[in-house]
Amino acid sequence: MDAAVCFSGGKDSSLAALLLDPFYDVTLVCATAGLADSAVHAREAAGDLGFPFERVELEESVVREATEQVVADGFPRNGIQAIHEHVLEEVAGLDYDAVADGTRRDDRVPTIPRAFAQSLEDRHGVDYLSPLTGFGRGAVDRLVETHLDVESGPSEQLPKGDYEAEIRAVIAEEYGPETVSECFPEHTQTRVRGRR
Amino acid sequence: MDAAVCFSGGKDSSLAALLLDPFYDVTLVCATAGLADSAVHAREAAGDLGFPFERVELEESVVREATEQVVADGFPRNGIQAIHEHVLEEVAGLDYDAVADGTRRDDRVPTIPRAFAQSLEDRHGVDYLSPLTGFGRGAVDRLVETHLDVESGPSEQLPKGDYEAEIRAVIAEEYGPETVSECFPEHTQTRVRGRR
Repeated sequence: MDAAVCFSGGKDSSLAALLLDPFYDVTLVCATAGLADSAVHAREAAGDLGFPFERVELEESVVREATEQVVADGFPRNGIQAIHEHVLEEVAGLDYDAVADGTRRDDRVPTIPRAFAQSLEDRHGVDYLSPLTGFGRGAVDRLVETHLDVESGPSEQLPKGDYEAEIRAVIAEEYGPETVSECFPEHTQTRVRGRR
Repeated sequence: MDAAVCFSGGKDSSLAALLLDPFYDVTLVCATAGLADSAVHAREAAGDLGFPFERVELEESVVREATEQVVADGFPRNGIQAIHEHVLEEVAGLDYDAVADGTRRDDRVPTIPRAFAQSLEDRHGVDYLSPLTGFGRGAVDRLVETHLDVESGPSEQLPKGDYEAEIRAVIAEEYGPETVSECFPEHTQTRVRGRR
C-alpha cells in the first residue's frame, strides 16, 4: 500500500512519515502554489530523510483566500486550517491508497474531525491516516529526539515548506513585513536535516 | 523507551503493538482478576507474536462492579469503559515509559478523551499512546490483513484475554448464561495466531 504524507520539512510531518514507513510505501508530498520556495525546502528535507517526493500544484486562489482570512483574523489558525483541508482533498484525489498528515493529538491547528476524515475517505476511496494523533506532546518530543536530526529557529529565519511560509510571503508582498509580525506571533519552528 | 500495551489477544491490541514495535521495547500486558482464563489466552497470543508478556493483577471488585454495571444497563459499553480506565491507571503506575492500548478512531468503546489521556500522563509521569486512533476502520482492516494471522468466530467460542471474557464468566456464574446473551449481542471476535 502506498501513502502520500503531506510534508512541510518540519518534525511533525517527518515523524508521521517515519511511523508509517514500516507499513506503507511513503511518498512525501508538498502542496504549494509556488508563491514561496516551499517545494524547494520540502524536497531537500525529503531527500535528507530518504523518501521519494512529489510536488502538488495548488491554485493560487486557495493561498490568497487563506491569506485574506489570516489578515482579517489577525491570527493564522483559520487560514491554515482552510488550506490544509483543501490540500487533503487534492492529495486524496491523487493515485495513492492513503493520504496522511502530521496532525498531533495536542494540536489546536490543523485539526481534522472524525467526520471530515470519514467523508474524505468515502468520497475519494482512500484511507486518511494521522499517526501522531495517537501520541501526546511528550511522546512526540521524545520520538523526534531519538529518531530525527532537527534544526530549530525563529520562523522568519528558517525557510520551510509549510503553509505558513507561503502565507507569510503573500502578506509581506501585499501588506508589508509589519503585518506578517502582527499575524504570526514569533515562535520557534523546526526543520529536519535527516534521520538519526 | 519501553511501552506496556494493554493486550487482549485480539487484532486491535496486536496491531497497536506492531505499530509501536519499531520505536519502543514493547511488552504485552493483560490485566485480569483471574475470574476467567484471560491471562492464559493473552500470554499464548503474545508468544505467537513474539513479544514479552506481563500479567497484571486487577482487584476482583473492579470486574464485579463493571459486571453489575453491564447487567444493570443491559449492554456492555459503560462497564467495559470503566474497567479499561481502571486498567490504564494500574498499568500507568508500573515501571514503563509509556502505556498504550488498541483504541481505534472509529470505536465507540472504549474511548479515551484527550483530557483523560493528559491527566493520566501528568499524574503518572508516563506517555499514553493509542496508535490506532490515527487510523480509520478501513486502514486498520487492511493493516491487520497484511500483517497478522487472525482467527475469527463468535465471542462465546473464541477464548480470549479481553474484559468481555471475564465479565461474561461472572455474569454466567451469578445470573446464568441467558443473561450473558441478553447483555452481549452475538458478534464476531478475533484472536491473533501470529504475524504474517
